[in-house]
Amino acid sequence: MAGVIRASVVQTCTAAYSLENTLSKFEILLCLAKERDGAQLAVFPEAFIGGYPKMSHFGAVVGERSDSGRDEFLRYYQGAIEIPSPTISRIEAACKEHNVFVVMGVIEKDLGTLYCTAIFVDPVAGLVAKHRKLVPTGTERIIWGQGDGSTLPVLEARFDAITNDNPAGREATRAKISAAICWENYMPLLRTYYYSLGTQLYCAPTVDARPQWQSTMTHIALEGRCFVLSACQFAKEADYPPDHAVADKSNRNADNIMISGGSVIVSPLGEILAGPSREPETILTADLDLDQIARGKFDLDVCGHYARTDIFQLHTRTQSNLEGYRDASK
Amino acid sequence: MAGVIRASVVQTCTAAYSLENTLSKFEILLCLAKERDGAQLAVFPEAFIGGYPKMSHFGAVVGERSDSGRDEFLRYYQGAIEIPSPTISRIEAACKEHNVFVVMGVIEKDLGTLYCTAIFVDPVAGLVAKHRKLVPTGTERIIWGQGDGSTLPVLEARFDAITNDNPAGREATRAKISAAICWENYMPLLRTYYYSLGTQLYCAPTVDARPQWQSTMTHIALEGRCFVLSACQFAKEADYPPDHAVADKSNRNADNIMISGGSVIVSPLGEILAGPSREPETILTADLDLDQIARGKFDLDVCGHYARTDIFQLHTRTQSNLEGYRDASK
Amino acid sequence: MAGVIRASVVQTCTAAYSLENTLSKFEILLCLAKERDGAQLAVFPEAFIGGYPKMSHFGAVVGERSDSGRDEFLRYYQGAIEIPSPTISRIEAACKEHNVFVVMGVIEKDLGTLYCTAIFVDPVAGLVAKHRKLVPTGTERIIWGQGDGSTLPVLEARFDAITNDNPAGREATRAKISAAICWENYMPLLRTYYYSLGTQLYCAPTVDARPQWQSTMTHIALEGRCFVLSACQFAKEADYPPDHAVADKSNRNADNIMISGGSVIVSPLGEILAGPSREPETILTADLDLDQIARGKFDLDVCGHYARTDIFQLHTRTQSNLEGYRDASK
Amino acid sequence: MAGVIRASVVQTCTAAYSLENTLSKFEILLCLAKERDGAQLAVFPEAFIGGYPKMSHFGAVVGERSDSGRDEFLRYYQGAIEIPSPTISRIEAACKEHNVFVVMGVIEKDLGTLYCTAIFVDPVAGLVAKHRKLVPTGTERIIWGQGDGSTLPVLEARFDAITNDNPAGREATRAKISAAICWENYMPLLRTYYYSLGTQLYCAPTVDARPQWQSTMTHIALEGRCFVLSACQFAKEADYPPDHAVADKSNRNADNIMISGGSVIVSPLGEILAGPSREPETILTADLDLDQIARGKFDLDVCGHYARTDIFQLHTRTQSNLEGYRDASK
Amino acid sequence: MAGVIRASVVQTCTAAYSLENTLSKFEILLCLAKERDGAQLAVFPEAFIGGYPKMSHFGAVVGERSDSGRDEFLRYYQGAIEIPSPTISRIEAACKEHNVFVVMGVIEKDLGTLYCTAIFVDPVAGLVAKHRKLVPTGTERIIWGQGDGSTLPVLEARFDAITNDNPAGREATRAKISAAICWENYMPLLRTYYYSLGTQLYCAPTVDARPQWQSTMTHIALEGRCFVLSACQFAKEADYPPDHAVADKSNRNADNIMISGGSVIVSPLGEILAGPSREPETILTADLDLDQIARGKFDLDVCGHYARTDIFQLHTRTQSNLEGYRDASK
Amino acid sequence: MAGVIRASVVQTCTAAYSLENTLSKFEILLCLAKERDGAQLAVFPEAFIGGYPKMSHFGAVVGERSDSGRDEFLRYYQGAIEIPSPTISRIEAACKEHNVFVVMGVIEKDLGTLYCTAIFVDPVAGLVAKHRKLVPTGTERIIWGQGDGSTLPVLEARFDAITNDNPAGREATRAKISAAICWENYMPLLRTYYYSLGTQLYCAPTVDARPQWQSTMTHIALEGRCFVLSACQFAKEADYPPDHAVADKSNRNADNIMISGGSVIVSPLGEILAGPSREPETILTADLDLDQIARGKFDLDVCGHYARTDIFQLHTRTQSNLEGYRDASK
Repeated sequence: MAGVIRASVVQTCTAAYSLENTLSKFEILLCLAKERDGAQLAVFPEAFIGGYPKMSHFGAVVGERSDSGRDEFLRYYQGAIEIPSPTISRIEAACKEHNVFVVMGVIEKDLGTLYCTAIFVDPVAGLVAKHRKLVPTGTERIIWGQGDGSTLPVLEARFDAITNDNPAGREATRAKISAAICWENYMPLLRTYYYSLGTQLYCAPTVDARPQWQSTMTHIALEGRCFVLSACQFAKEADYPPDHAVADKSNRNADNIMISGGSVIVSPLGEILAGPSREPETILTADLDLDQIARGKFDLDVCGHYARTDIFQLHTRTQSNLEGYRDASK
Repeated sequence: MAGVIRASVVQTCTAAYSLENTLSKFEILLCLAKERDGAQLAVFPEAFIGGYPKMSHFGAVVGERSDSGRDEFLRYYQGAIEIPSPTISRIEAACKEHNVFVVMGVIEKDLGTLYCTAIFVDPVAGLVAKHRKLVPTGTERIIWGQGDGSTLPVLEARFDAITNDNPAGREATRAKISAAICWENYMPLLRTYYYSLGTQLYCAPTVDARPQWQSTMTHIALEGRCFVLSACQFAKEADYPPDHAVADKSNRNADNIMISGGSVIVSPLGEILAGPSREPETILTADLDLDQIARGKFDLDVCGHYARTDIFQLHTRTQSNLEGYRDASK
Repeated sequence: MAGVIRASVVQTCTAAYSLENTLSKFEILLCLAKERDGAQLAVFPEAFIGGYPKMSHFGAVVGERSDSGRDEFLRYYQGAIEIPSPTISRIEAACKEHNVFVVMGVIEKDLGTLYCTAIFVDPVAGLVAKHRKLVPTGTERIIWGQGDGSTLPVLEARFDAITNDNPAGREATRAKISAAICWENYMPLLRTYYYSLGTQLYCAPTVDARPQWQSTMTHIALEGRCFVLSACQFAKEADYPPDHAVADKSNRNADNIMISGGSVIVSPLGEILAGPSREPETILTADLDLDQIARGKFDLDVCGHYARTDIFQLHTRTQSNLEGYRDASK
Repeated sequence: MAGVIRASVVQTCTAAYSLENTLSKFEILLCLAKERDGAQLAVFPEAFIGGYPKMSHFGAVVGERSDSGRDEFLRYYQGAIEIPSPTISRIEAACKEHNVFVVMGVIEKDLGTLYCTAIFVDPVAGLVAKHRKLVPTGTERIIWGQGDGSTLPVLEARFDAITNDNPAGREATRAKISAAICWENYMPLLRTYYYSLGTQLYCAPTVDARPQWQSTMTHIALEGRCFVLSACQFAKEADYPPDHAVADKSNRNADNIMISGGSVIVSPLGEILAGPSREPETILTADLDLDQIARGKFDLDVCGHYARTDIFQLHTRTQSNLEGYRDASK
Repeated sequence: MAGVIRASVVQTCTAAYSLENTLSKFEILLCLAKERDGAQLAVFPEAFIGGYPKMSHFGAVVGERSDSGRDEFLRYYQGAIEIPSPTISRIEAACKEHNVFVVMGVIEKDLGTLYCTAIFVDPVAGLVAKHRKLVPTGTERIIWGQGDGSTLPVLEARFDAITNDNPAGREATRAKISAAICWENYMPLLRTYYYSLGTQLYCAPTVDARPQWQSTMTHIALEGRCFVLSACQFAKEADYPPDHAVADKSNRNADNIMISGGSVIVSPLGEILAGPSREPETILTADLDLDQIARGKFDLDVCGHYARTDIFQLHTRTQSNLEGYRDASK
Repeated sequence: MAGVIRASVVQTCTAAYSLENTLSKFEILLCLAKERDGAQLAVFPEAFIGGYPKMSHFGAVVGERSDSGRDEFLRYYQGAIEIPSPTISRIEAACKEHNVFVVMGVIEKDLGTLYCTAIFVDPVAGLVAKHRKLVPTGTERIIWGQGDGSTLPVLEARFDAITNDNPAGREATRAKISAAICWENYMPLLRTYYYSLGTQLYCAPTVDARPQWQSTMTHIALEGRCFVLSACQFAKEADYPPDHAVADKSNRNADNIMISGGSVIVSPLGEILAGPSREPETILTADLDLDQIARGKFDLDVCGHYARTDIFQLHTRTQSNLEGYRDASK
């Protein structure tokens, strides 16, 4: 048997741009996911560390940026983290303490540019990979840069056997993990690349809370014959700084919903295993039976027996262009 | 304005493998779609001409084909059509008579091999293109061959202005049409190729009636920012020859549903414009406002501003290899 | 129904190099095949007109040709026929009289070179095509030239309905015919070319009487899913001029067998329908149910669903180079 | 002298889907082939490792896959092996211990897709190549993917001199080996490609036990002027799991024959050197005198003096398309 | 039997530029060839009518033409004939009278340009064809134009049976005739074109009297497997006008040889049948056994079994360009 | 000055099919040609390595090959060489040692087919090209394949200055070399192709010892305005294995002449520079003054000023079709 993994998607949000408070939330939620729900893998939303500045336009219009917008960007920049950094170490420590593999959205700072990044933290090896979002959407393009082909990991993680009173009686097992952030999930060639490397636990940190998001999560599970774990933020006005932009300034209310969640776990045959949830601060957990993948690929394997590699050839450059700047001697 | 096209998806089924009766159904349904509902474009299901032998395995098991299975195949082979052929001419005549552009699933015979094909019939120019399904699914693989890269058309059709009492008051307009049959819709590279050529009216003839099909149709509309027109068969046991395979031989009943429909029309922003229907013999019609495509591509254009062609390069061979056999000197 | 054709393979031989006597034999055998056995198609052996100079080496050794060998060649050359010619007209007349389609091996003369040719004579249209053997075998290479790509016909013939007391009650039908002569049948690319054009009645005029020939005939029927009709010569010493070469000069005997027949008809599923015969002057006849081809292609169609045209591409030049000599301005 | 090689074809079957038991059988049979019969080359049947699920249809009918069919596929998937893998290492060790070159059919697992593969294991170099079947036949198409042009090896193997009491007194020699699996043997272009690379030991692992198979093996030997070594499974019901599909459920009997063998060795001139055998668990052995190949090519060399490359040009793509997915930057 | 033809080559010369005297010589020589020697075919030298102005340069040097040279050209121009013309009629009458087919070199006048032409005169049909020399050699280029592809006849002539006391007892027969003038015989593509049309009686009117000419005549007979009939002029100073150029003005002598003959007849196997002669006014006659052609083509037929039309393709334009001037309405 | 090259044609024969002895002869003769006669270029006869099986018919008659004939072919096959191979290396070493450019006839083995090949070995660069005979003659057709358009080299070689006591006082120079083997010299289109590429040293390895061969050599020199170097074998019965075929078995005598030489060197104006020789084991040497070529082309250049490319167009395919088999993806 290929094994069963218990996985959680954590529906939560950044604590009003406070790094310290957000890390505390992370530690508590991670503890709950594991110690209460038995999770071996936990997925947190896009931009959980650093925050998703929903409704802001950073004072920018076509041809103009305002001084106050620059100030707002500076505050946002200051809340982002470097990789590695003490924040990363603190996250690694928590993963190790609870023996949970974590995939989490963070705002990454690299010199002057911010990236919307997903980090992969192994409980034993610590930070093992990161993925930078390839194409920001809409106004995100004025605050985030584009990732390149060097951060498209599909990595194999080990999940220990769990022998306590957990009814699933899980054995130690291994599975391949990847992450696509928000509308990257609409990029068919990125998905194909992940499928071609055998992704089994397809993580989708997001802030897209539209109802149609559910169709896309179900479609990807079916198309890729993989488990899809989508963690979305759920945030109210109270979860942002008081001066943060809102939909309707005339109707400010701490309880107004800014991002309405929709986290979900879908099986390789398109069955909803958990969610979608519209609750704030929720942990959704499911047992992922990896054998469902082989059962599913029986009739569809888009990079295997269902491919037409004679007609369609996808070539993927995974070279890092950025490193070219920094050391030409290699 | 890019224009508005009134389009129908026709939920119907083959008439118990009778070519004559099926053509009669086609002519009646096409007449209704146009003269009652005002359709300029009509999409018919997969394998409408020729039939979809649901539940049959043609006497084949691993390592063996039975004589009765070969007989069943022969019957099925005899019901298939050649392109061109008198049947095609009759379809062309109906399209011309009613001034409707038709996309329809047929079983095509080419020497000894059958193909699951979609034909494109222009009311003026007649048959203008065909698309052969690239990968048959499951047991289909024992009855249908694989298409190649030479039949992947994305063609521009012209739709006449309609000046009668039709409330839409449509002007003459043009739009690009393509077709992906049944589980081809799960092939991300095929879809990407179609998107890259600008498909606007993405036709999806199918016999997949699972509820999850709806997720995929909605996803494709969103991913490709195109109208998705999915026509599915609706068939009962009575719609097959009396000796045809059924799910449960002990419970034969002419009213048992073999394929339960689910035809649907979705807009480029993921809105359901018509359907999904679970009725037999239904015509679903909607006005397709082509301007919705530009509106949608404002924030997502997966082969344009949302592509990463520096990382992902898709090469598509559209050469026909089969023709090479026949004469290299011409 | 695709129809049933009654076909004969005629096991006979040239009448001691006499054109007149051989044509008389032809007329008698054709009459028998049709009027006694009901044949609509009759296949005659390789080199039936002109003769197969078995056991001769025409006085040639490496580096030398003898005068007597040239004389022998001259005699052989004089017995060959041009296409068209009065001999062809006489053959056409017999085909018309008996309403039989004939495929027959002849030695064709074109200026100074002889070709081992198969002619296709339609009862209505007369000579409709010819095929020149592409590669002579062994010592044949010193007497016959090589055909080129311009004489590789796969043509569709019409067979009239036969309403007399023939038990098969055949309807008018059509079928595709081709011919491969003797060891051309070992040329996989020639066979593939014929299959790709849909040959249904694969004629194999030959003089190869080895037992292994039967394996090849059965294999081709299976590989190509076609009817194989192999007509072999049966000849004794008495069927050659008295001075003709023999295997053992010390044991000349008019009854010694020179070519021992083995004519056979095989179905597309590898069943022997008639023969192999080792009798002199025999007509083998079988009813060919064309539906067996579709039944057979259900699980094997080497130029259709069983091809890998993405990997293997066969290009065939069917241009005549010889005509280029003669006038480029037309 | 070109040398003599002693070769065995092993007629056996998978041990009721047990990998461990099948490997044990392999080790015993390999030991016998070498230590008792003196084999330097041993060919095992198609799907020997992994099994050939004769008579099963994996719960699939046109348009439907059942849950129990998916379960059956999962069991079959779990019995397949990766290349390389510990199973491969164990096979390599046995080849090394007995100094035998092995060609063997295995079911190969590559991510979600299974392939029907032949492995080539050199006693010194270990696994040196593999060939994936290009076109599965009939219902095999629902369980196996298609190989591509990158696994069509014709490789030269070295066979040590054997100086013990073996009567053949073989010297060290070299010969070119290839493999075509089951009905691939009906693909004329694949065979031509192998011939063009000079295959001398044409291995044909199969499960086709029809009498007509013998015609095809003899034909290929003659056409390609090569030794043909066909190893077929011989299996009874007892050789399958108790719940496995059978021809007649009402007549289950452990002794019923599922696959009836027919392994055979044929010389380049079409002589049967060993077999065909209808015995279970048989080893057929013959001395292959490589000089017979030159003797045979004297009058037929279909890719040499008997080709018409001016008319027929075969182009073969041997590129792996699959690797293109994974990293274009290397 | 293909037949035997008695043919003569006539070694003679123009009568000091006198048309009348030259025609008289022609009539006498033709009478002798037939009535004394039995010739059915007679070949006369290059420029027999009109003359070959050996040793003259017509006063031309590079960049200059002299008045006296122009006068000399005028005299030469006046001696040339038109086709048709009374001179042609007179030649036709002689051929008819003696029942001989004649090939003869003439200087043809067409408006302002002279051509070195060979005429073909049938005893029954009269003038049936002409051939204009394609490339004049050396200084000939200042007096003769170039022929085009429209005058390259290979025509079939009929030779009556001859029943008188002629020992050969020839039957009526047919043979193909062509002509190449002087160094045209060095043009391999012209010769190839003639061979491709089956020339049997290859006529070579010339004035080349070098010893090496014999090698070329023998080579062409062998290469083309045809009879070569080369008629050369034999001329002394006395055969030119008194003021004509000579090799050595200080040694004028009526008996000095200007052109030394060398007429010859060669068989298709390279045997010399008559000549070469160095006598003035000689008629060489030989019986040409056409069967020698088939005997010879047994081992060499450069446009048949010995061609490589797949590699070398010769295209020949036989359109008349000159006619394009004259009538654009056709 | 274009330069002078001293060239030898070596009249010799294969040493009774012994590769070792033949190579020794080669090394001795090459040494003599250079160190005694000063040759910079040496031409050896057709089939010198491998042998010319004069008078044998390899047991083949029309329709039959005998076992003893196959054995004889096997012996002949075993004496042939591959290109490259250790034999080639040994030839290269000798050429380098003596600083001689060698053109030599060899029997080449390529998988199952033999070719009659001429190799071009440069003293510095080693093997630089090969030419395979395009059309074997007569009985050669049963032992040799046909070359294709890819081995028709006309290559430029460099000849070092020679400053020793050689009276010619040759400077370093360059010249274009080609080869036509035996009756290829009768192929007008092959010769034209060579002329069109500017061949200057036209090598004609042969075994044709007829007197008429001399006419053809002289004609080619004149037609192509090139030096013709024809090296013919001279062989007695003693030069063949004792069991080899002879003209008259009743009169076996070691001194009987099998091939009687006739090697010759001809200038571009048709002068005999050396030979023809009827001596065994002879080296004929001549100084080739390349300026004679321009002198000769003054009045005849059949691919230049004497061509009629408006009428005759020769197209030559120089593509190798054989390589197409092997990998179209490279």
